[in-house]
Amino acid sequence: MTNPPPNTTDRRPGGRTARVRTQVLDAVRAELAESGHEGLTMEGVATRAGVHRATVYRRWRDVGGLLVDLIGAAGEIAWEPPDTGSLRGDLTALNREIQASLTEQPSFAVALMAASFHSEQAARAQTQLWDDRYAQCEVLVERAVRRGELPTAQRTDARNLLIAATAPVYHQLVLLRAVPDPDLPERAAAAAVLAAKAGAFSVPEDGGT
Amino acid sequence: MTNPPPNTTDRRPGGRTARVRTQVLDAVRAELAESGHEGLTMEGVATRAGVHRATVYRRWRDVGGLLVDLIGAAGEIAWEPPDTGSLRGDLTALNREIQASLTEQPSFAVALMAASFHSEQAARAQTQLWDDRYAQCEVLVERAVRRGELPTAQRTDARNLLIAATAPVYHQLVLLRAVPDPDLPERAAAAAVLAAKAGAFSVPEDGGT
Repeated sequence: MTNPPPNTTDRRPGGRTARVRTQVLDAVRAELAESGHEGLTMEGVATRAGVHRATVYRRWRDVGGLLVDLIGAAGEIAWEPPDTGSLRGDLTALNREIQASLTEQPSFAVALMAASFHSEQAARAQTQLWDDRYAQCEVLVERAVRRGELPTAQRTDARNLLIAATAPVYHQLVLLRAVPDPDLPERAAAAAVLAAKAGAFSVPEDGGT
Repeated sequence: MTNPPPNTTDRRPGGRTARVRTQVLDAVRAELAESGHEGLTMEGVATRAGVHRATVYRRWRDVGGLLVDLIGAAGEIAWEPPDTGSLRGDLTALNREIQASLTEQPSFAVALMAASFHSEQAARAQTQLWDDRYAQCEVLVERAVRRGELPTAQRTDARNLLIAATAPVYHQLVLLRAVPDPDLPERAAAAAVLAAKAGAFSVPEDGGT
């Protein structure tokens, strides 16, 4: 918790504190998408949000504090991993969500990654968010095992499978800056499923990875 | 070519122009690794290189020009893809090189990626360098086909296989900031080989991807 405790009149849901936070985080999102991390200032955010600068400084302290709260807010959004009935379908749907978030213009997700290269606070918050999302997605692999889609003689390392399925989308779009390929989400998903069926992510039952 | 033509006395290999370029690019590399893209200035580079500021401004114009030339210089280094006798061995060796470049402290490769989020010029130069390196690595897949390691009924898309093999290393280390896992290079390589053997990167002979 980086914020000081709000006073009691502020604590009701939808009260002033919550409203100010929404305004400020909306402004951070917009500034980040428009001008990137380098253009993000406390003053710019306060002006765009229509909130007193003193309030922004008091609650968020600095740009790093804004980024951490923004990433925290992303983690508060109710998100459910896809459930299409097959592992390939689930991973394809997941990759399509990722591809959409990376290719929308301006991309808030890409701006956040850029920011995390320059703010250790933002990097830690982002790593935590990603870790939570991958943990949520492990159920895709559990369901696939229950459906008999994956080898059952050995445990499948869900995290490694999920990384293999999603990494090509991030690599192509964020680092290699490839032109978005509409077939990429399914191709990367299908390759990971074939590798998984062939035992690429199997680990000995004694729990080693 | 961003540099003006040097005068004739400068054109001999190892002459003053080449020496100045080496000094300046060494300084850029050191500044980038130490303080990142945000700390990179023409003045800082000139001072560290022991070269007149006027020379640095005349030849490289701005920080973007320095980054482009630096990435160009990386492309001039003779680099050969690994040749271990098996596709899995080759991809593992390639991933180990990538992992080493991303985990050394300070990492010039990571600093360059960070810079490319903020400089369109640097981003284009980096994309070109990566494209060249992946093109060079396609021979790994051609050799594997000749050795009978991959299905021959359909052509294997070498680039997609290479991306699948290497992407998890970049994703884990650059974006997810995972603790370096010494098994990751081989695990990612092995998963891509299993997927390739199962036909994940096969394309119809009519050339579609």
